[in-house]
Amino acid sequence: MNYKLASSYGFCFGVKRAIKIAENTPHSVTYGPLIHNKMEIDRLKQHFNVGLTEEFGELSKENTVVIRTHGIQKHELDELKKNDFNVVDATCPYVTKPQEICEKMSKEGYDIVIFGDKVHPEVKGVMSYAENMERVFVVLDTSELMGAGLREKVAVVSQTTRKFKEFMQIVEWLLSRSKEVRVFNTICNATGENQEAADELSKEADIMLVVGGKNSSNTKQLLEICKTNCKESYLVESAEDIENGWFDGKKLCGISAGASTPDWVITEVVEKVRKI
Amino acid sequence: MNYKLASSYGFCFGVKRAIKIAENTPHSVTYGPLIHNKMEIDRLKQHFNVGLTEEFGELSKENTVVIRTHGIQKHELDELKKNDFNVVDATCPYVTKPQEICEKMSKEGYDIVIFGDKVHPEVKGVMSYAENMERVFVVLDTSELMGAGLREKVAVVSQTTRKFKEFMQIVEWLLSRSKEVRVFNTICNATGENQEAADELSKEADIMLVVGGKNSSNTKQLLEICKTNCKESYLVESAEDIENGWFDGKKLCGISAGASTPDWVITEVVEKVRKI
Repeated sequence: MNYKLASSYGFCFGVKRAIKIAENTPHSVTYGPLIHNKMEIDRLKQHFNVGLTEEFGELSKENTVVIRTHGIQKHELDELKKNDFNVVDATCPYVTKPQEICEKMSKEGYDIVIFGDKVHPEVKGVMSYAENMERVFVVLDTSELMGAGLREKVAVVSQTTRKFKEFMQIVEWLLSRSKEVRVFNTICNATGENQEAADELSKEADIMLVVGGKNSSNTKQLLEICKTNCKESYLVESAEDIENGWFDGKKLCGISAGASTPDWVITEVVEKVRKI
Repeated sequence: MNYKLASSYGFCFGVKRAIKIAENTPHSVTYGPLIHNKMEIDRLKQHFNVGLTEEFGELSKENTVVIRTHGIQKHELDELKKNDFNVVDATCPYVTKPQEICEKMSKEGYDIVIFGDKVHPEVKGVMSYAENMERVFVVLDTSELMGAGLREKVAVVSQTTRKFKEFMQIVEWLLSRSKEVRVFNTICNATGENQEAADELSKEADIMLVVGGKNSSNTKQLLEICKTNCKESYLVESAEDIENGWFDGKKLCGISAGASTPDWVITEVVEKVRKI
């Protein structure tokens, strides 16, 4: 099968950095998955004995705690530090930024609008930095802002992995109602670059594979983008998910991958496609 | 001839207020036209002896100086006050706002982007409030921002009479390049309301008349909007500009008017159309 990789795909700066930090902190524990890719988490466990705890109460002082790329909630980080846990912070610097903005703007009396998914750990972390949680509005759509009773001073940030065009719809809605809006474009460039490349490639390909975790926000966004251009777009977590039947009558398979997908997983997918 | 008036048209709050101020200050002089409507200026001269001076140097202390709705430049206002001129300020409060924003943001080290026409008196006035004139960029189009060398901290305001959708294009361009943009929606609601009403009516009418001064920014914007829906759209300053031939074979004449167009001028236009 003919295949073509997107001109930009896979690991972003923040993920690479977090993995390096985890590899340099063997026998540690992450609170929540370090990145949204189970296979890479398994590899870190096998090779570096980096464990994973989902429950805050189960963290113990015996192991260094590595903070996941998506960041954690402020009160939890404060508690770890207060109790003298050994903490190594692998929060992506692009996630630290909206946390800081949320804290600062909230202190200055701004209502905070976060464009993102309120159950995503990154967003939970960002909103936890607000001084006044009642004045934080997490939305995926302008309809959720209607009747929200926003005040005059509004600041808006985005989950790092969102689409710029959709962020602009939120901004436009806010500006049509508020006299001042402080807009912080906290969308990560790497996300945008992977998205643009996937968009381009999916116009050319007649089947698209997006390699990445099913719980990865940016992988799911890539899949959505590909689907608008190429109906036969599939999210695969590994080479095993690939079904030969998908390729019947197809000429070119485009391949992209989320920011948390390790190269070795992508290589396995490429190898399998090549042999079809 | 059948006609229909737009659901919103004509005098805005700022213009009404300025005329009231001028009427209450007889024997005064305005520096530059009070509003962009020659006929109303003539009426104020005839009935209230409100004169007009275009040259700053020709102002004298003998007459109270009325500041036009569009505002004047900061150094000129400062000079009038310093030299104990009797000054009555008829600057529209919606214009004072971007002046204040420009001054404050410039002091705080922001680059200032003004969406507007650099030769329009309102814009000249607004930009004059910047502390650092070299960091003010007046543009009508994103192409003018390319290569401008904008810094990280950017604040953006709009000339009050601009179209919101076009303002958003400027905002979007800035956000795709800057991490923070402070967006001040200084577009006047009245402008928007007249524009929406003209847009709606011009879809229905087969001839549109926009009544207003040829030097009025918001009147020209209305004409542009009407033209996108109705090719036979005309700007008329008064009933005298109307040509009977325009109406051949037409069924409905839509009528709108700029924010500086007095009711008595509109009434004359309506009367003439009615009789065709």
